Amino acid sequence: MTAANGLQSASRQSVLLGIVAASAKTPELDLPAGSGKGKRVVILGAGIAGLVAAWELSQAGWDCVVLEASGRVGGRNLTVRGGDILQEGALRQKVCFDQDDYLYANLGPARIPHHHRALLGYCKAFDIALEVFTNDNRAALFHNSQGFAGKPVRARHVMTDVRGYVSELLAKAVDRGALDQELTDEDKERILKMLKEFGGLKAERLAYEGSNRAGYQGRDNAGVAGGGEPEAPLDFRELLTSDFWNYKLHFSHFLNQSPTLFQPIGGMDAIPRAFEKRIGHLVRLDCHVQQLRRTNTGVRIVCRNTQGTTEIVEGNFVICTIPTPVLKDIPNDFSSKTRNAIQSIEFNESLKIAFQARRRFWEEDQAIYGGISWTDQDITQIWYPANGYHQEKGVVIGAYIWDREPGLRYARMTGTERLKQALAEGEYLHPGYAAEMECGVSRAWGNVPLQKGAWARKTEEAAAVLREPDGPFYFAGSQITALTAWQEGAVLSAHAALNRIHARSVAD
Amino acid sequence: MTAANGLQSASRQSVLLGIVAASAKTPELDLPAGSGKGKRVVILGAGIAGLVAAWELSQAGWDCVVLEASGRVGGRNLTVRGGDILQEGALRQKVCFDQDDYLYANLGPARIPHHHRALLGYCKAFDIALEVFTNDNRAALFHNSQGFAGKPVRARHVMTDVRGYVSELLAKAVDRGALDQELTDEDKERILKMLKEFGGLKAERLAYEGSNRAGYQGRDNAGVAGGGEPEAPLDFRELLTSDFWNYKLHFSHFLNQSPTLFQPIGGMDAIPRAFEKRIGHLVRLDCHVQQLRRTNTGVRIVCRNTQGTTEIVEGNFVICTIPTPVLKDIPNDFSSKTRNAIQSIEFNESLKIAFQARRRFWEEDQAIYGGISWTDQDITQIWYPANGYHQEKGVVIGAYIWDREPGLRYARMTGTERLKQALAEGEYLHPGYAAEMECGVSRAWGNVPLQKGAWARKTEEAAAVLREPDGPFYFAGSQITALTAWQEGAVLSAHAALNRIHARSVAD
Repeated sequence: MTAANGLQSASRQSVLLGIVAASAKTPELDLPAGSGKGKRVVILGAGIAGLVAAWELSQAGWDCVVLEASGRVGGRNLTVRGGDILQEGALRQKVCFDQDDYLYANLGPARIPHHHRALLGYCKAFDIALEVFTNDNRAALFHNSQGFAGKPVRARHVMTDVRGYVSELLAKAVDRGALDQELTDEDKERILKMLKEFGGLKAERLAYEGSNRAGYQGRDNAGVAGGGEPEAPLDFRELLTSDFWNYKLHFSHFLNQSPTLFQPIGGMDAIPRAFEKRIGHLVRLDCHVQQLRRTNTGVRIVCRNTQGTTEIVEGNFVICTIPTPVLKDIPNDFSSKTRNAIQSIEFNESLKIAFQARRRFWEEDQAIYGGISWTDQDITQIWYPANGYHQEKGVVIGAYIWDREPGLRYARMTGTERLKQALAEGEYLHPGYAAEMECGVSRAWGNVPLQKGAWARKTEEAAAVLREPDGPFYFAGSQITALTAWQEGAVLSAHAALNRIHARSVAD
Repeated sequence: MTAANGLQSASRQSVLLGIVAASAKTPELDLPAGSGKGKRVVILGAGIAGLVAAWELSQAGWDCVVLEASGRVGGRNLTVRGGDILQEGALRQKVCFDQDDYLYANLGPARIPHHHRALLGYCKAFDIALEVFTNDNRAALFHNSQGFAGKPVRARHVMTDVRGYVSELLAKAVDRGALDQELTDEDKERILKMLKEFGGLKAERLAYEGSNRAGYQGRDNAGVAGGGEPEAPLDFRELLTSDFWNYKLHFSHFLNQSPTLFQPIGGMDAIPRAFEKRIGHLVRLDCHVQQLRRTNTGVRIVCRNTQGTTEIVEGNFVICTIPTPVLKDIPNDFSSKTRNAIQSIEFNESLKIAFQARRRFWEEDQAIYGGISWTDQDITQIWYPANGYHQEKGVVIGAYIWDREPGLRYARMTGTERLKQALAEGEYLHPGYAAEMECGVSRAWGNVPLQKGAWARKTEEAAAVLREPDGPFYFAGSQITALTAWQEGAVLSAHAALNRIHARSVAD
């Protein structure tokens, strides 16, 4: 639908869905109590998908077991705290943070959008206390090394000016009659009124001359006597040639990035811990899957622990959540279609670096409370902690990289080199940055043998294959959903697998 | 500066202030320890301005006393909890909320912008724990009784579509050459790229055809298999004729409304309570000022308590924070210029209504976590609690009215009538709303004898007069600042008065 069509069609009103329909919950899992009598499900992987599957199956009276290769539950849901050991292939890092509740880093998922209802449902059911995660902070910084003399500018300054210039240009075009084929005189009058508000155009002559929405020069607010000069508008051509408009400018408009977002108080691993508290007894840690085999009645999983002891686990069904880059190398009885799909889903090289700062300079010096600054350097983003406000110290995410090339560059470095380089890049946003940092830790997900990547790149065709069971093998994990990288995808994928297993079990 | 100028002037780059300057703190109070030896300041009013003045004076060794007419500190900073008695002239309401920490209502100020550094400075100094206040929630509702069949639409739907249509129209105008006098070919190419991103235009033909930024039809997110149909675009003409673009659409772009914002955990009155804990002994409650007189050496304040006992309090200076609508009727020795200024500052009729809901239906049914819905009805806004997420109950602000006519309409009603009417208006946003509410309480600030209004309307000329002392009389309160209605204004006004008193005291 175009603006022109929209204006001409009053019938469009009928498409307006009732709010109730629009807010309908995600399809509910339907696994009746007692439905699984005599059936056993083997779940591979104790990440979010595996934990959800085990919880729901056990609640409905099914027999199930979770085989987890690592020594902990949670998978890529990983929160690190002072004293933790972080192994990444050969690289061994000891987390250096002080031992305070608020000093932690979520090195995997770190935010929960308000419409991720299935995940939030477990947070509610398990009494996991949530706090708001600030994604969009207008005080945070945009930095492009090619623009504005390489100096960072405030997000609110960029956002205000872009809206101002866009409004000015459209107002001029409307005023000149350039859109007369789309707009009636009445429309034009209304649009001009709207644009003045939308863009903060002050003058009658439809010009953007800056706005106090961008802040005041040399100060943060209007102060006692008020006013002062608003920040001078940024040069429009520099705004266009900067990369600010690419992604950053409308980041909080993406459905999964729009407010409200949450984080569990004390760390994202509150979620796997809540599951573990309830079904930890169903999880066998340190159990590396060696083979996935079909039998006459179902499946046989061969598993070896770190001491080299082999175990056979049998069941009627498998729910396999092993990341495809790992799964593809495990001997199995999958169909060739399934194998090809697994082979084709690639994971990305995402990397996070977390630093403990001796002083919350972002708050003290710049009134940045939470949120994300952006840069065109490899580190891509700096996240300010959305907790511990006004405390002495804080843990900053000093790099969150997901593009391939910078991800690979950082992944190839030693732990020490990564920290040094990330600090150097941070200096462009915060002069003095490196000196404020006490220590750091990094995680290149691509280097972790049991993960081999942070999340699946979009490969919808292959994912669609894996959403279908292959005999007794069912797949789950965000990797087979449209919500790849999101815990919600993991939850929904587990629900979908369970619904299918149940339906088949009833049909049998 | 216009877009055209901006494009042509590279020298604009020089106006870019360093971030450090832009984030400079508010002018610091300079009241050296021991500076006030032998001097006594009488402070009138124990609201935020009076408390700040008393705290700072006592810290610097001055002798001071605070005369407060009511039985509590905080002034319009008012948090109510179950069991509280709320007196509003003859109207007496008992707050009916359950006795849980998270069930309270801030009937005065309720949010603290991140750049209100002076106020946040006290929060930090006094260890007042803060949590994020969600102002802009894209899941909240916009409702206009004249548009979209009178049905509410999601904020994200309106915001996404307006940006889409604006981008489409500008892209078309650029494409047609309507802005060739402003734009080079290279600019045009860049602008078109930017607009596609900015507006979520998907097609090559520069049309806005809806975007999943608005959400998906009948569901909240992409789900397992992904995609589905994005919400159909709202009719552009209806968007123009609705009042959505007036204020609401760019609310979070206003400097004082932009993220990050905070609230103290447990209620805004954590702030006055923190002051009271430290300087409560300096405050005389229930002391109604009857006269403000000059003497040879300073001032004489005549004060009467609720039992009718008269007291005389003398000092070298007065800091008067009494709201001007109250102050204008107290006999005084002010100059005629001061009197005229006081007379001319009017307060508005703001009113808040808070309801306790038996169930957090906004979260459960619609995934609205905090934030504000808007309507063109008298209630103006509904605020969803930014605390107690996933608890059973919650306190909703069911009306926050600041326009004159609706404010007066509601102020004239009985307490019961207000609740009934606000519930009826809420039904348009949330069918079933009234039945979910257990009880409510209202506050019409204009009816409170000691306040006579919620905050000063803008009367900058008069405020400027009152920022100058009138002999020994100094004025404070947000009413004399550009940050009227904001606690930050109260703090800064107190700092300004103290700086002046100190300077004069040194000069004497």
